[in-house]
Amino acid sequence: MGEREVNSRLGAIDAVFNPRSIAFVGASNNLGKWGFIIFHNLLMGGFEGRIYPVNPHEEKVLGLKAFHSVTDIPEEVDLAIFTIPAAAMPSAIEDCVKKRVRAGVVISAGFGELGEDGKNLEHEMVRKARASNMVLVGPNGQGIVNTRARLYPWMPAYIPSPGDVAIISQSGNISTWLAYGLGEFAFGVSKVASTGNNADLSWEDYFLYLKDDPDTSVILAYVEGAGQGRKFFEAAAETTRTKPIVLLKAGVTDAGTQAAQSHTGVLAGDDAVFEAACRQAGIIRVFDLEEAIAISGAFVGTPLPQGQRVAIVTGGGGMGVMAADSCIAAGLDIPRLSRALKDKLKAMLPSWWVPGNPVDMVAGLGFAGPREIIPILFESKEIDAVLLIAIGWTYMMKDISENSPFAKLMDIKPLIEQRYDRERMYCNLLAEMIREKNRPVFPVSWVARKAAENNFSSILELLGRGIMVYPTQELAIKAIASLARYQAYLAGERE
Amino acid sequence: MGEREVNSRLGAIDAVFNPRSIAFVGASNNLGKWGFIIFHNLLMGGFEGRIYPVNPHEEKVLGLKAFHSVTDIPEEVDLAIFTIPAAAMPSAIEDCVKKRVRAGVVISAGFGELGEDGKNLEHEMVRKARASNMVLVGPNGQGIVNTRARLYPWMPAYIPSPGDVAIISQSGNISTWLAYGLGEFAFGVSKVASTGNNADLSWEDYFLYLKDDPDTSVILAYVEGAGQGRKFFEAAAETTRTKPIVLLKAGVTDAGTQAAQSHTGVLAGDDAVFEAACRQAGIIRVFDLEEAIAISGAFVGTPLPQGQRVAIVTGGGGMGVMAADSCIAAGLDIPRLSRALKDKLKAMLPSWWVPGNPVDMVAGLGFAGPREIIPILFESKEIDAVLLIAIGWTYMMKDISENSPFAKLMDIKPLIEQRYDRERMYCNLLAEMIREKNRPVFPVSWVARKAAENNFSSILELLGRGIMVYPTQELAIKAIASLARYQAYLAGERE
Repeated sequence: MGEREVNSRLGAIDAVFNPRSIAFVGASNNLGKWGFIIFHNLLMGGFEGRIYPVNPHEEKVLGLKAFHSVTDIPEEVDLAIFTIPAAAMPSAIEDCVKKRVRAGVVISAGFGELGEDGKNLEHEMVRKARASNMVLVGPNGQGIVNTRARLYPWMPAYIPSPGDVAIISQSGNISTWLAYGLGEFAFGVSKVASTGNNADLSWEDYFLYLKDDPDTSVILAYVEGAGQGRKFFEAAAETTRTKPIVLLKAGVTDAGTQAAQSHTGVLAGDDAVFEAACRQAGIIRVFDLEEAIAISGAFVGTPLPQGQRVAIVTGGGGMGVMAADSCIAAGLDIPRLSRALKDKLKAMLPSWWVPGNPVDMVAGLGFAGPREIIPILFESKEIDAVLLIAIGWTYMMKDISENSPFAKLMDIKPLIEQRYDRERMYCNLLAEMIREKNRPVFPVSWVARKAAENNFSSILELLGRGIMVYPTQELAIKAIASLARYQAYLAGERE
Repeated sequence: MGEREVNSRLGAIDAVFNPRSIAFVGASNNLGKWGFIIFHNLLMGGFEGRIYPVNPHEEKVLGLKAFHSVTDIPEEVDLAIFTIPAAAMPSAIEDCVKKRVRAGVVISAGFGELGEDGKNLEHEMVRKARASNMVLVGPNGQGIVNTRARLYPWMPAYIPSPGDVAIISQSGNISTWLAYGLGEFAFGVSKVASTGNNADLSWEDYFLYLKDDPDTSVILAYVEGAGQGRKFFEAAAETTRTKPIVLLKAGVTDAGTQAAQSHTGVLAGDDAVFEAACRQAGIIRVFDLEEAIAISGAFVGTPLPQGQRVAIVTGGGGMGVMAADSCIAAGLDIPRLSRALKDKLKAMLPSWWVPGNPVDMVAGLGFAGPREIIPILFESKEIDAVLLIAIGWTYMMKDISENSPFAKLMDIKPLIEQRYDRERMYCNLLAEMIREKNRPVFPVSWVARKAAENNFSSILELLGRGIMVYPTQELAIKAIASLARYQAYLAGERE
């Protein structure tokens, strides 16, 4: 493909995410059909461009005038969305070509994933589209999202908020869970593409388009099989110089590969080769949904560690011991602190403190922290990242404290409010310190996933500034290792 | 120790968890002190026995008459709880011995964990107690819980519900998180002991006591170092023949070991030796808090799989592919299904279904399930466990569906209610099938952790019957592997 052709393809992809007008082919009033559910989500989302339902059997769909064919639409159409049966697709594409529609999202299933006949149908559809430079997402995907355009033509009745992470996924369900999971941490998404069989647009197209997308700072990809290997990794390597790609891959084992083949009809390939190619291309690999969410969240706003030396600051000894184990297992270092540094810390900690790393604050977390201990740790140049265990304790004490029958005997309310205030202030100072000093802190809170839903203000002080808070220390530790590895890759590329 | 002595110790441990009367030595009106917080929790919890605050400087503590010394209490005292400074402990124990107090919970810190002087103090305290058969929990723990006795003298302002899991933990914080984590899944605890330094009562005592505790069906232990190795494993092996021990151990690496030494003053030892001894004793090892919670929850009410052959039943292809990978990684099998079994399944699935394992229900999960597909899988004798991905989808659709502006155009409310009903019925049938056929299903729901808090009725149909629902498929798969391993251990023991 020549450069000009690539640019024209990238332009056409923009019609997928930023169309001025949309034809919805298969829009339906039947509540049980995807043509209803997805069309309903499109209308619900608040997209401000023109929307034309196409259905030969209806006069109106959800109150909008319906057209019998795309060719009947009087105005220009940038994007067509399809929920009609697979067999009807080639002729629907012919109509779009006549109408000079620039892009299509083929949600319809029944193509390459079903074997030889389906593959032939898929080829025919793509050939017709490519002949006139129309690009296609899918088939066999669940749709696309562009939060900035309030564009939500996809299957789930879930509307993610605008944010920095773009999700490209070969599984529809997984794109939903990734977006939903980020939302639990108050992180939004920029764009989502459920790519299905990748029959026309494929990984390299999405990577190169998102590389230059100003709304996207992290790309989160779910991959079943690498497809066209060389192009995939070339485009990825070009992208990772600008922004990280966090990649979740399935089909690692024989059983997984076999399942992947029947799911989207691709060959999963040899995992060791894939792993080596990922490392070379600077791709950050993750191995389950929770890692995918935590680590793409980490890349949103946490400064990159300059090395792998971790200080563990903990309010409880046991968690510190386990965190030290997990850091070592993740290839990170837990350096012994110098005498000079220990002396400095000792001056701010309780008398019974046993100096060392982990820095065990002995149930005293909060009385010295973001303004004292953590800056001193960074200033020592002995460490690269701080793992902070744990914040958000006050929320689990809420009910019991507020309902104390002894509230009559003592003034307990101000004490509780003071606790909340102190914790909110602590997190506020922490967020500001991270920003000002540009040094990475990885805070853990067991209730992090509930923060957005329940408006836990202290945790939101961090999440709201794009600083991930981790529901477990294991996820925080994986995030430290991933960010340090990406920093090392960037440094290597710059040499 | 002779058998009679063991029995007398077990009797004394019962005074820890089922005292008729409690002296709280160090009870305080000062809101900043543990002597206030823990005493407050004791009163809040609703314990119905007699409670005597002991404080030489107060007439009343939280409205109750205070005594200057334990010896001043006019009635019998079964249990003493201590929050006084370490140095004052030996003479406090002397008072308890005079009063014939049977057991003590020493929350006070400043003993063996601080080095030689602390160790000497600890020995002195234990010697005095043992001389008159008084047993001690701690020192340096955060207290104990017995939910059936509504007994909550511990640090966190959190009151776990009654349930089947006993928690024994060398870390106070970790005992809190384990109880809180189980509570997120609507599982309660039977008893909690935060054991601290294990200076008197130790692992073998807790194991043997809980082995015969009718309220406990699963023992969840957090261990830093094995302490007296032989006794630990002997008592564990005796216990695991009756009920499972799920064990979380920290101090696996050098950095972790070093941290453990300064935390509770024990030597963590060589992990490979520990691992081998665990396997021999039938102990189920877990490696982080989430595994500890999911797997102890699994043991509460899920039937044990008779082997390691897993059928994956999934509503989304991508999740099935990843699950197959994770099963293989966990040492489980994903058998190919026989032709006869596939034909039976095909008759109940959509026409476009691609037969195989994973059983991908192609966004059709729910239209055939606990009454059809899952029983057929078990009846085939080709599989031992079902991993079910995923239930609880409807909850994420709640907001958008209920707020649809198109509700005027169509009657969408009944549709939503129908969805909820269908899902609740699905889970109800599933729970009943698991019970009746006594076969293990491991259901996954991304919102499982929110089910108790938000009263998600479908998921609670399972959790409420003691059947764990897993927030991720990775945790469900670890649970399958753990339950299968325990079943194999029990079968081997019976031979």
